[in-house]
Amino acid sequence: MSNNLTIALDIMGGDYGPRSSLPAAVEAVNLIDHLTLILCGNERQIRCELKKLDALTHPRILIEHCSEVVNNDDLPSSALRNKKDSSMRISLDLVKSGRAQACVTAGNTGALLAMAHYVLKMLPGVKRPALISTVPTQTPKPVYLLDLGANVTCDSEVLFQFAVMGAVVAEQAQNIDSAKVSLLNMGAEEIKGHESIKEAAKLLQCSEHINYIGYSEGNDIFSGKADVIVCDGFTGNVALKTCEGIAKLIVHKLTKALNKSLFNKFLALLLFPVLKKLYKRVNPDQYNGASLVGLRGIVVKSHGNASKKAFLAAIEEAVREVERQLPEKIRYKFEEIINKNA
Amino acid sequence: MSNNLTIALDIMGGDYGPRSSLPAAVEAVNLIDHLTLILCGNERQIRCELKKLDALTHPRILIEHCSEVVNNDDLPSSALRNKKDSSMRISLDLVKSGRAQACVTAGNTGALLAMAHYVLKMLPGVKRPALISTVPTQTPKPVYLLDLGANVTCDSEVLFQFAVMGAVVAEQAQNIDSAKVSLLNMGAEEIKGHESIKEAAKLLQCSEHINYIGYSEGNDIFSGKADVIVCDGFTGNVALKTCEGIAKLIVHKLTKALNKSLFNKFLALLLFPVLKKLYKRVNPDQYNGASLVGLRGIVVKSHGNASKKAFLAAIEEAVREVERQLPEKIRYKFEEIINKNA
Repeated sequence: MSNNLTIALDIMGGDYGPRSSLPAAVEAVNLIDHLTLILCGNERQIRCELKKLDALTHPRILIEHCSEVVNNDDLPSSALRNKKDSSMRISLDLVKSGRAQACVTAGNTGALLAMAHYVLKMLPGVKRPALISTVPTQTPKPVYLLDLGANVTCDSEVLFQFAVMGAVVAEQAQNIDSAKVSLLNMGAEEIKGHESIKEAAKLLQCSEHINYIGYSEGNDIFSGKADVIVCDGFTGNVALKTCEGIAKLIVHKLTKALNKSLFNKFLALLLFPVLKKLYKRVNPDQYNGASLVGLRGIVVKSHGNASKKAFLAAIEEAVREVERQLPEKIRYKFEEIINKNA
Repeated sequence: MSNNLTIALDIMGGDYGPRSSLPAAVEAVNLIDHLTLILCGNERQIRCELKKLDALTHPRILIEHCSEVVNNDDLPSSALRNKKDSSMRISLDLVKSGRAQACVTAGNTGALLAMAHYVLKMLPGVKRPALISTVPTQTPKPVYLLDLGANVTCDSEVLFQFAVMGAVVAEQAQNIDSAKVSLLNMGAEEIKGHESIKEAAKLLQCSEHINYIGYSEGNDIFSGKADVIVCDGFTGNVALKTCEGIAKLIVHKLTKALNKSLFNKFLALLLFPVLKKLYKRVNPDQYNGASLVGLRGIVVKSHGNASKKAFLAAIEEAVREVERQLPEKIRYKFEEIINKNA
């Protein structure tokens, strides 16, 4: 039933480079039998690692040699100008040329944004790309949060467009008709917050294309009242990283508390599987990766210190987005809105 | 050794009104023997409740009748104009007139900001007041976070001033010499974030009055690397409420996981005390309250749904701020900076 699909991987990106990306790649082709992967990076290093994994001759693993690597401290502008043969850039070029239908990287986010924007270009009518990811809620369904850091500030029109893109992503992923969309603000009252948010609220209230349910505050993110929560990239980044920090803090405090007596240590041992699962759930960034939406191609960004499991999850996300034809769905939605308004 | 001190309480504010504020007041005078409280609110209601608590004739409990209450949905401008005999306004008036040395309220934050600013006025040289509170870290010391919602946007000078005020608060509270101050940003790199943050970083780097340690990201808040973290009120509000939301989510998920089997239920029972303590620790807003700094008087804001314990904690915080002469310390610091720069 499923068509063959090809995904380009930036094998060199992230804190662990090939050590986490390559085992994830091998597991992905073993799990998904219609998936071909193009591994972008240092050929010698990739071959050496693939040999260890006994996957050197896998028919659905191809290697694209790249002589450069984008480092975590490379400035976006400099990476864009100078690293044209980097594993990150080549992964994007493969999507642009159509050889791959999506790409996955755990590399430098700033450089990725600059390169992806330059190489793939925006979908017609879309002003800015956004980073989107899910955050767990008290319901079985997660909530989609965007933007997570692609844009420091956003005007009301950009926030409106993020609402449209977020709704498409949530509706496709969760197979729902009309995603509930909310704007992140500092209070539920209409008078609070930045002017851009208040203006975006007016645009969303007037739009027949969006099921807008009003403002959310920071604590509402996890309540499940919305399917999509929209904010500027600065706010989204702080909110997501605050989640990461507090999850770490809770594990730290709990570990300390559970180490206080022999009885508590015994408890901790029994509790370990529950806590491990919980930590992963409340630490979304680390485990889900984020997608860059609004571009003419699919780009999934795994966390910089992604483990093999996290990188695999990012590959699987890319596969799902290809199957859902996400950029096309966003393009249709924008055409619909533009035509209606024309 | 300690001098008598008098604090005005807005008894009517918050979701529970007298039900949580009055028992807290009675406990406070019983705990702190040099403390006198002026209870501002509906005299009949207060007398009735005090009678139930067997504290109607307590020599250090005074009642100031107020005919109005600021509601949670009152607009700040309207509360300021129309509620001059409200329990919130009278509490502030008592500080202004010198009859009380501080006031505590769990009422409408927006109205409180407007009224406190109008009644008490800013300290010389201070441009804007800020809401400040502590957040737990992985070290035994908490970190002070400001602004938590008094100002939606802040220019670089305001952020610089918040750094100065935050440092004074942390140094006084933790008895340290030179508090480590950080700016909350979306990345550790110098090129990231709002212009106001980058400008504030330059001001702080150049200042001999502040021990500035660079940017923090959302996840760094809880690491303990800084004593004070500065941001605009929108960002601080989202970060603090995100903490509140994720703490609730974790309790929810853990409760669910621990309900899955009889064995897990047994575990939950054993774990309950550890978890309860942890929840309180990672849910700072709910338990600590926040202080309004930069004004010519001490104002402590308890959480809207403050329990008796939380309201008591807010009274104790007000007592400590009076003893530390916090507004005077901030005034000295600003004079020092202004004189040096003159």
